[in-house]
Amino acid sequence: MQKLTGLIVAVMGGDAREVTLVEHLADAGATVKTFGLPVSGGNIIPCREPEKCLAGVQALILPVPGVNQYMQLHSAYLERPLKVTGELLALLPSGSPVLVGMARKPLRELVESIGLDLVELMKLDEVAILNSIPSAEGAVQMAMESMPITIHGSKAIVLGFGRTGQTLAQLLSAMHAQTTVVARDPAQLARAVAMGLKAVHFNELMNCLSDVDVIFNTVPAPVLDKDVLVKVPSTTLIIDLASAPGGTDFASAEELGVKAILAPGLPGKVAPKTAGRILAQVVPRILLQRVKH
Amino acid sequence: MQKLTGLIVAVMGGDAREVTLVEHLADAGATVKTFGLPVSGGNIIPCREPEKCLAGVQALILPVPGVNQYMQLHSAYLERPLKVTGELLALLPSGSPVLVGMARKPLRELVESIGLDLVELMKLDEVAILNSIPSAEGAVQMAMESMPITIHGSKAIVLGFGRTGQTLAQLLSAMHAQTTVVARDPAQLARAVAMGLKAVHFNELMNCLSDVDVIFNTVPAPVLDKDVLVKVPSTTLIIDLASAPGGTDFASAEELGVKAILAPGLPGKVAPKTAGRILAQVVPRILLQRVKH
Amino acid sequence: MQKLTGLIVAVMGGDAREVTLVEHLADAGATVKTFGLPVSGGNIIPCREPEKCLAGVQALILPVPGVNQYMQLHSAYLERPLKVTGELLALLPSGSPVLVGMARKPLRELVESIGLDLVELMKLDEVAILNSIPSAEGAVQMAMESMPITIHGSKAIVLGFGRTGQTLAQLLSAMHAQTTVVARDPAQLARAVAMGLKAVHFNELMNCLSDVDVIFNTVPAPVLDKDVLVKVPSTTLIIDLASAPGGTDFASAEELGVKAILAPGLPGKVAPKTAGRILAQVVPRILLQRVKH
Amino acid sequence: MQKLTGLIVAVMGGDAREVTLVEHLADAGATVKTFGLPVSGGNIIPCREPEKCLAGVQALILPVPGVNQYMQLHSAYLERPLKVTGELLALLPSGSPVLVGMARKPLRELVESIGLDLVELMKLDEVAILNSIPSAEGAVQMAMESMPITIHGSKAIVLGFGRTGQTLAQLLSAMHAQTTVVARDPAQLARAVAMGLKAVHFNELMNCLSDVDVIFNTVPAPVLDKDVLVKVPSTTLIIDLASAPGGTDFASAEELGVKAILAPGLPGKVAPKTAGRILAQVVPRILLQRVKH
Repeated sequence: MQKLTGLIVAVMGGDAREVTLVEHLADAGATVKTFGLPVSGGNIIPCREPEKCLAGVQALILPVPGVNQYMQLHSAYLERPLKVTGELLALLPSGSPVLVGMARKPLRELVESIGLDLVELMKLDEVAILNSIPSAEGAVQMAMESMPITIHGSKAIVLGFGRTGQTLAQLLSAMHAQTTVVARDPAQLARAVAMGLKAVHFNELMNCLSDVDVIFNTVPAPVLDKDVLVKVPSTTLIIDLASAPGGTDFASAEELGVKAILAPGLPGKVAPKTAGRILAQVVPRILLQRVKH
Repeated sequence: MQKLTGLIVAVMGGDAREVTLVEHLADAGATVKTFGLPVSGGNIIPCREPEKCLAGVQALILPVPGVNQYMQLHSAYLERPLKVTGELLALLPSGSPVLVGMARKPLRELVESIGLDLVELMKLDEVAILNSIPSAEGAVQMAMESMPITIHGSKAIVLGFGRTGQTLAQLLSAMHAQTTVVARDPAQLARAVAMGLKAVHFNELMNCLSDVDVIFNTVPAPVLDKDVLVKVPSTTLIIDLASAPGGTDFASAEELGVKAILAPGLPGKVAPKTAGRILAQVVPRILLQRVKH
Repeated sequence: MQKLTGLIVAVMGGDAREVTLVEHLADAGATVKTFGLPVSGGNIIPCREPEKCLAGVQALILPVPGVNQYMQLHSAYLERPLKVTGELLALLPSGSPVLVGMARKPLRELVESIGLDLVELMKLDEVAILNSIPSAEGAVQMAMESMPITIHGSKAIVLGFGRTGQTLAQLLSAMHAQTTVVARDPAQLARAVAMGLKAVHFNELMNCLSDVDVIFNTVPAPVLDKDVLVKVPSTTLIIDLASAPGGTDFASAEELGVKAILAPGLPGKVAPKTAGRILAQVVPRILLQRVKH
Repeated sequence: MQKLTGLIVAVMGGDAREVTLVEHLADAGATVKTFGLPVSGGNIIPCREPEKCLAGVQALILPVPGVNQYMQLHSAYLERPLKVTGELLALLPSGSPVLVGMARKPLRELVESIGLDLVELMKLDEVAILNSIPSAEGAVQMAMESMPITIHGSKAIVLGFGRTGQTLAQLLSAMHAQTTVVARDPAQLARAVAMGLKAVHFNELMNCLSDVDVIFNTVPAPVLDKDVLVKVPSTTLIIDLASAPGGTDFASAEELGVKAILAPGLPGKVAPKTAGRILAQVVPRILLQRVKH
């Protein structure tokens, strides 16, 4: 565990993930001022007002989903939503790091306009790969809940073989699903072969659809369009893990009677504690690198 | 697929599993008379009265759970429960096979007193092993739904290394849980080692409990008694797969604040179609062996 | 580690396995008198004469292969072979345990005629299962050495799904060979399915032979006879792990140009230290149970 | 299989890999002129002189290792070595593709100076990943041959988690070695964790060395220097897969009594047919892309 003694950070908003993160930061020696989180204990200073929370800190940690379209802080515990404004953020020392999972454009622009140092955690390869573990399990859990058959012996297709696709395809194969990976990059197809998976180029996708129980999409592009969906048996389940709006033509799926589920943000939903531990593994190093001493 | 042409069998009561079974038997060429099942099609003769269903058949297939304590047929579809009586069963030719998953004592005695040939499918090693697949997945699904962490990286204990224990421990290990098998038989412990699992004798159980996220019990004996439960962290989840009443002292668990779930009969609940296919794989061979020609 | 303090045992003959065993027994506190082994150290008393070695001991451990057809002790280190006679064994106290891997009939009869307690270690399920690990690896190593292709992607058949067959088939599958298990017992076939392996009844063997790279036999019966061998491509490799004379018609194989290797006793050959550790895990418990106090 | 009808290519020198490649290209419809290879059959034109071999072709395929330091063609079959010269290569049409596994600097400069299109196959991610399969198996085979213990249960370290490291670490783990990955890049460490492997930063390497049976190095830099080697038990085996001169201080290893083996070019040695098939999978696409029509 990296020692954070002497560091003072604010954590505002969030859910069970941030609870785990705050406890870890405090254990590591940081002083953690919080707003809107049910935490307490040594090194933790819960604040009732956002301004107080930011007073004297060296860095701000926002929740993984950041803010909604109204610039309101994502929060599982606050009764009244908090709007994130320039005045509020300006309480931070200039150049301070502001950590967030993903930032929509308005938040990014706001943070940068004030001269703060925005860090989007989900863009870090390390975080994205670690998050692929709860994402993959969450996807499998959804398939288990929605299918009348076991994963074992089922015919599964995984579209895309990036960070989430790799973890998911290996998990399905380990559970003895007949797993086919569909990807475009020859190097990714070669990696799938090395892992013992059946690998197929996207050009061949149409030939794989007549006998499939479940399709998992990880590609953030319209890959499951109507032309593809008409080839899929109506009993097939589609689980789309790509960030909203996903890669599935959901309207066509419904029309064709194919059950399709958009499932973004699984880590925080199915395994908040694991998701919090992933933050707790990465955030200390980033704070030590970015906070000016 | 084994041909069943010429065979006439009755299937009474049941749930989605029996639907799958009936369709398979009819596909294989048998004439299937049904009572209380939403099926139809070639070779299938739905009957409104149980007596008509039994007329002229060579074998009777009862649902997996058989009858309840009032001798009422297990059924997911019948509006009024049907009591299974000696008069009804006596409509079958003497010596006919009567297939059922598990028979409570009264049903077993009734069937045998009439001179019919009772076959309890769940007692067959083959069926029990195949059913261990949906049981293991169902147990994992329950753990996923109840835990705030992923299976990946979790610390899991599997008590018992028989038919279900083997399948479950291998599944957990394949999903990268840190899996410890606890068993008594040196040969079973050796098999666990050969499978790459950590294996511990039951005598050492007490030393494994201080840091465990989930315990799965498959032993039909009181192994998780109060003495054991007091050693378990209160955040630990217990899933008991042993047939009722399980191997857990549930009252003590509740008292100690340890969440414990009794989860019998998982195959029919979490993967009815797979459970039906398992029946469909085994039943034809048994019919061909047992029906007198 | 089980304490053996106070125990006095003789270990006569043997190879690297017995070296590992002797060291372990001495570490556990036993006094170990040895004949024909390059060992020394605390608690170990090397003896130049077999009679001295047996004086005052409570148990005798013979090498895994026991004696040859001339009753000569198996030994990797003795310059002159030692014949095991009744007079020699009679130096042991009546009823003393005599441990050996496998005993041919003459040895068994001799030991029992003197009133000693013969224990054949390889007949213990636990030992046979643990030994299946080096057997399986040794078989894979032989296949690697003899084939111009990788195990990954190769088409492999495993005949028999007992103790060695299970370990070997799981190893091949883990290495991403396309593995087919051929067995007769429905429960064994079900177990293979649960492990995610392709399982085929022996009746169907003939249909699996046209496209196979390597066949591993574990069945101690003539399963690979001429009728089967004529169906096998001449490039196929056969590795027969069944105890001599194996299950292959080697003459026919040679005639047909199919390379077939009989490979008994792999653990001592490919991984003598692991094989010794397996003995070291089992022997202490047996000594504690069998030696009279 | 991609159709190569109409294409005329030369394959000069090589070993069993090129035999497999030539057969595949001819099967796909190409006319293949060969020099120094024991092949024949439809579409294959063996030539006795290198000049005749090059006449009229559109592309040249050299052996995987290319030429040695004297510019002599690598060949397993030629009695007299062939020197590759500018005059010879100039027989090819300007701009023709020249495929080779790896080109030393002189060959690269020669080919480019004549205006030919050099393609180094081993630099393609796809080829390197596919070759990691036989490399990893070859490394495991060497470990099996050199160690008195099984891979199962052994303590293994894999240095580097690139293309070969990933495949090798997954193979070892699948064989139930206790596998530790040592790498530097946080994203690679995260991927190792996602694969269920123990992952350690290079900074922590020194703490992992006291109890290890085998170390596989894949890093082409001096990572196993004297400071590291003194910490390693003398029974440890080192297998260095990095391209020559490897990453091990072999002199120090010998001095310290640690067995260390440099093992480059494993695919062609342990599984030439698999290595040939990998070429056969990649070369047709490259020919179709690069040959001018």
